[in-house]
Amino acid sequence: MITPSRIEHDAFGPVEIPSDRYWGAQTQRALGLFEIGEERFPTVLISAFGLQKCAAAQANVRCGVLAQEIASAIEKAALELHEGRWDDHFPLTIWQTGSGTQTNMNANEVIANRANELFGQPLGTKSPVHPNDHVNRSQSSNDSFPTVMHVAAAIELRGRLRPALEELRSALAERSHAFADVVKVARTHLMDAVPMTMGQTFGTFERQLSNALARIDDALPRLLILPQGGTAAGTGLNAPEGFDTFFCAALADVTGLSFVPSTHKFEGMAAHDALVELSGALNTIATSLLKIANDIRLLASGPRCGLGELLIPDDGLTSSIMPGKRNPTIAEVLVQACLQVIGNHQTITLANASGNFELNVAKPVLVYNLLQSLRVLADSVNIFARRLVRGIEVNREQLASNVDRSLLAVTALNPILGYDRVAQITARAFRDRVTPREAAVALGFLDGDEYDRLVDPAALAAGSASKR
Amino acid sequence: MITPSRIEHDAFGPVEIPSDRYWGAQTQRALGLFEIGEERFPTVLISAFGLQKCAAAQANVRCGVLAQEIASAIEKAALELHEGRWDDHFPLTIWQTGSGTQTNMNANEVIANRANELFGQPLGTKSPVHPNDHVNRSQSSNDSFPTVMHVAAAIELRGRLRPALEELRSALAERSHAFADVVKVARTHLMDAVPMTMGQTFGTFERQLSNALARIDDALPRLLILPQGGTAAGTGLNAPEGFDTFFCAALADVTGLSFVPSTHKFEGMAAHDALVELSGALNTIATSLLKIANDIRLLASGPRCGLGELLIPDDGLTSSIMPGKRNPTIAEVLVQACLQVIGNHQTITLANASGNFELNVAKPVLVYNLLQSLRVLADSVNIFARRLVRGIEVNREQLASNVDRSLLAVTALNPILGYDRVAQITARAFRDRVTPREAAVALGFLDGDEYDRLVDPAALAAGSASKR
Amino acid sequence: MITPSRIEHDAFGPVEIPSDRYWGAQTQRALGLFEIGEERFPTVLISAFGLQKCAAAQANVRCGVLAQEIASAIEKAALELHEGRWDDHFPLTIWQTGSGTQTNMNANEVIANRANELFGQPLGTKSPVHPNDHVNRSQSSNDSFPTVMHVAAAIELRGRLRPALEELRSALAERSHAFADVVKVARTHLMDAVPMTMGQTFGTFERQLSNALARIDDALPRLLILPQGGTAAGTGLNAPEGFDTFFCAALADVTGLSFVPSTHKFEGMAAHDALVELSGALNTIATSLLKIANDIRLLASGPRCGLGELLIPDDGLTSSIMPGKRNPTIAEVLVQACLQVIGNHQTITLANASGNFELNVAKPVLVYNLLQSLRVLADSVNIFARRLVRGIEVNREQLASNVDRSLLAVTALNPILGYDRVAQITARAFRDRVTPREAAVALGFLDGDEYDRLVDPAALAAGSASKR
Amino acid sequence: MITPSRIEHDAFGPVEIPSDRYWGAQTQRALGLFEIGEERFPTVLISAFGLQKCAAAQANVRCGVLAQEIASAIEKAALELHEGRWDDHFPLTIWQTGSGTQTNMNANEVIANRANELFGQPLGTKSPVHPNDHVNRSQSSNDSFPTVMHVAAAIELRGRLRPALEELRSALAERSHAFADVVKVARTHLMDAVPMTMGQTFGTFERQLSNALARIDDALPRLLILPQGGTAAGTGLNAPEGFDTFFCAALADVTGLSFVPSTHKFEGMAAHDALVELSGALNTIATSLLKIANDIRLLASGPRCGLGELLIPDDGLTSSIMPGKRNPTIAEVLVQACLQVIGNHQTITLANASGNFELNVAKPVLVYNLLQSLRVLADSVNIFARRLVRGIEVNREQLASNVDRSLLAVTALNPILGYDRVAQITARAFRDRVTPREAAVALGFLDGDEYDRLVDPAALAAGSASKR
Repeated sequence: MITPSRIEHDAFGPVEIPSDRYWGAQTQRALGLFEIGEERFPTVLISAFGLQKCAAAQANVRCGVLAQEIASAIEKAALELHEGRWDDHFPLTIWQTGSGTQTNMNANEVIANRANELFGQPLGTKSPVHPNDHVNRSQSSNDSFPTVMHVAAAIELRGRLRPALEELRSALAERSHAFADVVKVARTHLMDAVPMTMGQTFGTFERQLSNALARIDDALPRLLILPQGGTAAGTGLNAPEGFDTFFCAALADVTGLSFVPSTHKFEGMAAHDALVELSGALNTIATSLLKIANDIRLLASGPRCGLGELLIPDDGLTSSIMPGKRNPTIAEVLVQACLQVIGNHQTITLANASGNFELNVAKPVLVYNLLQSLRVLADSVNIFARRLVRGIEVNREQLASNVDRSLLAVTALNPILGYDRVAQITARAFRDRVTPREAAVALGFLDGDEYDRLVDPAALAAGSASKR
Repeated sequence: MITPSRIEHDAFGPVEIPSDRYWGAQTQRALGLFEIGEERFPTVLISAFGLQKCAAAQANVRCGVLAQEIASAIEKAALELHEGRWDDHFPLTIWQTGSGTQTNMNANEVIANRANELFGQPLGTKSPVHPNDHVNRSQSSNDSFPTVMHVAAAIELRGRLRPALEELRSALAERSHAFADVVKVARTHLMDAVPMTMGQTFGTFERQLSNALARIDDALPRLLILPQGGTAAGTGLNAPEGFDTFFCAALADVTGLSFVPSTHKFEGMAAHDALVELSGALNTIATSLLKIANDIRLLASGPRCGLGELLIPDDGLTSSIMPGKRNPTIAEVLVQACLQVIGNHQTITLANASGNFELNVAKPVLVYNLLQSLRVLADSVNIFARRLVRGIEVNREQLASNVDRSLLAVTALNPILGYDRVAQITARAFRDRVTPREAAVALGFLDGDEYDRLVDPAALAAGSASKR
Repeated sequence: MITPSRIEHDAFGPVEIPSDRYWGAQTQRALGLFEIGEERFPTVLISAFGLQKCAAAQANVRCGVLAQEIASAIEKAALELHEGRWDDHFPLTIWQTGSGTQTNMNANEVIANRANELFGQPLGTKSPVHPNDHVNRSQSSNDSFPTVMHVAAAIELRGRLRPALEELRSALAERSHAFADVVKVARTHLMDAVPMTMGQTFGTFERQLSNALARIDDALPRLLILPQGGTAAGTGLNAPEGFDTFFCAALADVTGLSFVPSTHKFEGMAAHDALVELSGALNTIATSLLKIANDIRLLASGPRCGLGELLIPDDGLTSSIMPGKRNPTIAEVLVQACLQVIGNHQTITLANASGNFELNVAKPVLVYNLLQSLRVLADSVNIFARRLVRGIEVNREQLASNVDRSLLAVTALNPILGYDRVAQITARAFRDRVTPREAAVALGFLDGDEYDRLVDPAALAAGSASKR
Repeated sequence: MITPSRIEHDAFGPVEIPSDRYWGAQTQRALGLFEIGEERFPTVLISAFGLQKCAAAQANVRCGVLAQEIASAIEKAALELHEGRWDDHFPLTIWQTGSGTQTNMNANEVIANRANELFGQPLGTKSPVHPNDHVNRSQSSNDSFPTVMHVAAAIELRGRLRPALEELRSALAERSHAFADVVKVARTHLMDAVPMTMGQTFGTFERQLSNALARIDDALPRLLILPQGGTAAGTGLNAPEGFDTFFCAALADVTGLSFVPSTHKFEGMAAHDALVELSGALNTIATSLLKIANDIRLLASGPRCGLGELLIPDDGLTSSIMPGKRNPTIAEVLVQACLQVIGNHQTITLANASGNFELNVAKPVLVYNLLQSLRVLADSVNIFARRLVRGIEVNREQLASNVDRSLLAVTALNPILGYDRVAQITARAFRDRVTPREAAVALGFLDGDEYDRLVDPAALAAGSASKR
């Protein structure tokens, strides 16, 4: 079967394009060249390109370099891009030129073709709307693509990751409150230590999440600084004065995010330090979440031969061979998502270190990894909060039994007996397989009543540092 | 619109499934639970699952624990899986239990439903073919999934990466031969050094590729060792004696790869050291390719203000603002692919370090990253070889001009004049902006004829180490 | 020769210690056990331990749990530690328990012995000053070691890295100003692009350094939050109320850094998210510096066969075989330091992800890598600023020649001629090896005077984005 | 106090050097320039330089380009270097030129001074033995330093890491044998699974170590290929024919390692792929060891509130606040060493990717990290084997109790009852808090005797896969 086609022209000559596709010559050439992998930009990037082209058209009108009639058609088409209507007309993978030029041209071409269609012209006419002279007016891939990288990341940060972290923080806080009076044995070096409460455990996780929110909030200001207006190299060649300001105002208006123009646009094109910084925050958060997920997995291990202090909700999934076996699947998902984020951080770090002179040329791989990190972190945190943390219960029997048997609450006697005599108590208790209370009495250091008064696990858990 | 559905049952009760989908209850439960990201296993993994289930059915028959009639239906359905017919019936992402259980169950369920259909039964009957009791017979996710990880990686290694590296090695060798007589100035610390040939430069790249092939060949033997037969924990509970041997024989037969059963199956389930090892080879190869791609990009920089010693073929792509500008797009693609592979190696490393006791539970994220590395490396190497390296030409004018102007061919005079006097020559040449020949004569160390005889760039390029 | 020795006792019995060493039994046991590597904590960590023990003694007095006489001796000994007097009495490497307990005990033992000496007692008496009961009073390794990690990092950040980054920012700003009128050809994708100035290039680097300073300033607040007072597990068992507040006040007083007590001390003992966050900032800065060092190396490449646009100062070092060869050694040092920082970030990230329950047990390796990153980054940035950047000059001839020969200043004609006709100019210029001016005139698009007026490199370099 | 000094000259003029130091002008200049950090090459690298200079002198004599008398003095001095006599005369850190030139010159200068001293000349005469013309004869830093990198790594691999891995493999094998009959409950997803033996657990670790040995053995051949003879850029300029072969023969003779000359020396100077490959093997081994150390730590957790199945030997170290507390310190050391190796691998990877053209210029940082990885891995593995693994015992009571209480040995009934009915047994047992035996009987699926016959943990542990 022959696919019907049309001919489009670019600076290098004619190219054959399937009739029903809105992309143009440069996209088609790239499609024939880059037969690599299947990794595509997430739709949020294409959507952000719609916003960027729309804001650019508005700024061009404000600067007097684009006719309102042309701009209106571009804006309409660009907003359709934003809404996802033309996603199927972005056939390229991320494996393209390091400036993202092919996807920028893809956006220019789809918008030009669609805008010309709105003018009643057939696809491929490049008139009245030209992909370079009008859609890309006052722009280069070199400033547009990094602008879109920032816009897409900011949208995902605000709309996806922040709410998910908030949700988890809230779930942990709620469990911390619920378990405030549940005494447990702390574990340091994985070994039994002094008494504390399960509420303190979940309070620790909550604190990590509060800090996670502060970390992404700290990264935001530099994310909102955009290089748009720098054009080819940062000088702003062919961009009229004021273009950058009008552009950011238009973009801020539609997104509600306070984008501002960079005062030295070279920096945001030659390097993507702000994105490595954001990835660094995600990397830090991933280490927090790994700790939390692993602690919960271990505390819920069993049901009969593990630590068994926590009970996590059933999720309906089981083993293919061991019938009825329950596994902490959701915690494992979060662990894996975090490992992905840490590896992605490495790629992002190297991508940023790989720039030369006026242009970083690892933009597509950088933003692909960053948007993946934001997405999988957000989604897995969300499910972890809603489907696992909110349903956690404690196994009070197991916890109480552990508190009773543990040795090191006697640490509380240090100020009275001194470190060396307390050491004798624990050594005796361990050797004779007795409780430390029995050992303390046997050693003649104090009587049972004194011991009970001085070594009360619940009171010890509420130590001086727990008062706040 | 209401999607028509049927009810299937698993150990936990009834589940509603769209009528036209071949998956079953456990897949459907997972689908409702894991709303995370869009990352899917590449089709080669599903295809490898088809091979694995087919070989298992054959081995079960050989061991006398599965009726031939049941096995034949399973084999037929499994081979359809292998051929890609049921790809649309694998709806889960990689974000699932760390053992890959959900995708194993998905395979079991699709094959059972399809096999029952071949028996004339409606979907969901689980009879005569049961997903656990028959399709998964003598297996667990815990041995099947890692087996499939190895099989898919071996297939990609042999069928995709090795030929691509061969292609690049051959293209580099061919260019090395073509440029054997082209003298150039070597660069150490980026600074002009002694004479050599462009053939030697491409010969260096070729050597790196030869070693790359040796590296993946070294990783292969441990990749061909399979844990299948270990079942739930490695002991082989419920797998009949000989199952593992029959399984590997069947798999080797259909793939042509010499798979062998592990003699301590716990190891291949609890850890994936062999896959980290393979990723380590890919990581090494990525560093080789980064060097090669960057050297070629730099040597081809210009066209008028760069090093300009190499000319790379036009690819028809250009800038969105600078009309007619040519960029080394394909080299940039390869660079980005290598950065992805290095980051993936980090995720794979951490995934393997994250196992506990009898099971590594970061299998899905590990194999996703590994298969991505294999694919994008292979594809980008392929295009780099075919569309860039094979078309490289030298800029003889630029090279000759550089050889004439450079200072350090005088190093050849060290054995005659001694290091300290040669240092005087270069210092004088640099200070007075003259050729080293002029400086040497001016300093009275030798006359012009002697100089020309002793410092002949082409002869020096063919130094003692170049004789081989 | 027999080393004279004394006997000390700990909870497990007697230990033989060289007579002239101030450490005690636990240090000696560790010394016999951990025969691993040669990596030692930098002296800043031992010095910070001196500050920590001194502040703890003061806080204990304020809380009424330590006699002033004992405390005064501890304070005196601790300040001697801070001043480096006892560095030779810290024989352990970083390869010890994950809580840093052995180095904490080493500090306790040295201070106790020294304090007892001040009381006229021989070493090893543990009286009147006991290492655990007095020096370690109200403390555990579990809160003291992470406190010292923060203190040492904050001291290095303020005293070493920040001034170095300031120095480099200033050197770059000064060069940016000096080169404000030097027109050059921008390079995107390593290929010749539109005109800009060398001042803009250095201004870009300066901007990256300004952001670097903002990044470390953002990381500081969470670095100043200390877990001291949490004791064994975070509850504050055996620490009197108010201890944490008095401690931080004393420490802030002597250091001038605004340390504050954590309100949930578990968090700073179980995890070191704040340190990963700081390392993330260093990682981001390393990518900035890699870009800067590499750009300068490349722009200074030559002297005759490279880009040759920058001239970097001679440093007196040369090749062992090529007499008089000058290499960008200092830039290579900075590059290597950055690679170290990026690798260290990986270790730090994993170390933080490795905690379990109430204690992170990868503290020594974490802080070792962090302090190394701070130190080598600071030192190499310092030298890079002082010995390289401040002495950079431009090669005006080379720059002017490049500007004359380059093709893409014609991009400025896009708004007048449109993208497609400008593409014809560059294609013609490239094909016929003529200037774009000649090509434009030959194509009849405009005359030479018009061209010169519209395509003036210096004017173009001062584009709309350069006005600020 | 004034340090007495002498004056030495190099190509750039006079330099003042402390009288008692054997280094020369280039070392002294470097010392004044690079005030960075404290990281030094380990002595094995200086020692390997001694071997390299000695072998070069011998090869020069064989080639007829160096007088025997000069060569003999160089050889004597070089062997003193090898033996560590001049370590104090290598004052530079690793933070130097990326080719390692300063340390190569340091070796040339110390050897020349020492050789001249043997001839009765004062330091600094450079006669009769000249550091460049004689000690460095037929060599460049560019081929000598990477040769020394390989030699030092090969020595550490053979002499330190391999024996340590052998020791651990042997210790694990011995424990595996000792625990061959100890039945335990396997854990998958951290959850109770089917029965196995503790011997199988240690056998799994042993298998990982066997593979570790195979991995380093696979990396060795490419490590033994040396670029010596390539001189400045790889062509072998100024090296006589046969030099490389004589050199490797001399080096093989003294080390017992089968070094061979590279047949394309450019490759080993421009890139260090073979060292990344070796680091990749260490990275893989680090993930194996992390798994092993973590499993042992967790299995030994307690003593009363953990898994408590293993008992690890006391090491005499304890908590600073919790008297008598025992922690798995040695396992934590190994964990931290592995985290260091994984981070170092990142630095090594990036260092290798950072080369340009004929020279990799991140050699010092690369080899520093590689030698550190080899050393700390070897030392910590050694202690882990000798001080921890060899003393591990099992807690038979705890293990037996766990086996009795666990649920999933019933998996053995799948072939008899089918997966769905076995699922009913586990669900009932869990719900009613009874044993699966009781549940099976209550459900009427089989009687107690049948159950005991079919579900015998010891028999199940010896499953089909355990027969080998």
